[in-house]
Amino acid sequence: MRHKQRTQSVQGSVPTQSVGTIQNSDKKTAMRTLMIEPLTKEAFAPFGDVIETDGSDHFMINNGSTMRFHKLATVETATPEDHAIISIFRADAQDMPLTVCMLERHPLGSQAFIPLLGNPFLIVVAPVGDAPVSGLVRAFVTNGRQGINYHRGVWHHPVLTIEKRDDFLVVDRSGTGNNCDEHFFKEDERLILAPHQ
Amino acid sequence: MRHKQRTQSVQGSVPTQSVGTIQNSDKKTAMRTLMIEPLTKEAFAPFGDVIETDGSDHFMINNGSTMRFHKLATVETATPEDHAIISIFRADAQDMPLTVCMLERHPLGSQAFIPLLGNPFLIVVAPVGDAPVSGLVRAFVTNGRQGINYHRGVWHHPVLTIEKRDDFLVVDRSGTGNNCDEHFFKEDERLILAPHQ
Repeated sequence: MRHKQRTQSVQGSVPTQSVGTIQNSDKKTAMRTLMIEPLTKEAFAPFGDVIETDGSDHFMINNGSTMRFHKLATVETATPEDHAIISIFRADAQDMPLTVCMLERHPLGSQAFIPLLGNPFLIVVAPVGDAPVSGLVRAFVTNGRQGINYHRGVWHHPVLTIEKRDDFLVVDRSGTGNNCDEHFFKEDERLILAPHQ
Repeated sequence: MRHKQRTQSVQGSVPTQSVGTIQNSDKKTAMRTLMIEPLTKEAFAPFGDVIETDGSDHFMINNGSTMRFHKLATVETATPEDHAIISIFRADAQDMPLTVCMLERHPLGSQAFIPLLGNPFLIVVAPVGDAPVSGLVRAFVTNGRQGINYHRGVWHHPVLTIEKRDDFLVVDRSGTGNNCDEHFFKEDERLILAPHQ
C-alpha cells in the first residue's frame, strides 16, 4: 500500500497524526488529518522564512528612531533578468474541513505572503522534491503578525485564509519561463485540513 | 536669494505652499510649510509606486478564489549579484511640527514601505537629481491601506509615522557598495512639516 509505505517513511520531526476515514464512491480510504502546528521559525525552517519581529535581531537606524529587523527573508530568483515584484492577493476562504488534493511549487523563485489585515492564516507545505510526499506534508497556523517566505521549489497549498476574505502582500519572482507546477495527489494520498475540530 | 529662485522654479504640479517664518539665532528665515497632499498613484508617479488595491487591476488565480493585484511595484536593483530582501521597520514618531533638514536616497535600488498595522503615515519626497531641490519637495499622507515604493534614487525623508510607534514591511535592495546618500539642506532651504495644523 503506497500510503502506508509513505507514512512509515515519515521523519521524526513530523508531529503525530490522526487518521480518519471517508466514504469515497466505491471504497473507504484512510486519509490523514493534518495536525495544525503553531508557526515558528524553527518548525518552518525546512520550508522557508518566518517574517516577524518576535525573536528576530534588529539594529537601529535613522538616528536611533527606527529598529530595522533586517533581511528577514531574501527573494530568490533564477536568472539575472528576473525581478522581484510586489503584489497584493485578496483571497476568499475555502470550505473547511478541506481535502488537500493538490500542492503547487514555484521552481524559479521564492514567494512571500505577509498579512495586511493582521489576521492569522493557514499554511500547508511539503519539502522540495520532484513531487510532494503525502506523508511529509505539514500544516501551520500563524499568529496574525507573522508572514512567510516559501523558498524556491517548496510545495505549498494556494493561500488559505481563516477570515472569510483576507489581504496579503506578496513578494515573488517575475520573469520568463514556467514558474508554477501543480501536483495532484492520488486519492489515497489526500489529506484533511480541519482547523475547527 | 537662493530660496526665492528655487521657489520660482517650482513646476505647476506642486501645490500652493504657505511660507512661515522662524526665529533663528541671528536672523529671521522664511521656511516653506509643506502642503500635505492625499497620496494618489497619479500624484506620486514622479517618485514611485503606490501599493494599493483601490484603482488597481487584478486577475483571478487559484480557481477563482483569489484576486491577484499583480506587480504593483517592481524592486529595482543595480547588479546581477544584488538581491531583493524583506525586512520590518519599527519606527518611532518624530516631534511635530518637524523641520525637514535632510533627505536621503538609495542610488542602487528602490525601497518599499507597506504598513503592517493599518495606519496612515507621512511621506516627504523630492525628484531624482544630484541633490534634492527644496522648492520641489512634496509631502503626502497615506490612507492606512496604501504602501509606497520609492524608485531608485528618489530623495525621501526617513520613515515618518503618525502613530507613536508603527511597523512597516520594507522591501529593498541588498548588495555591495554604498546605497545611502544623505543631503542636508542649507538653513534657508529647510522646510516645515506640520500635520496637526
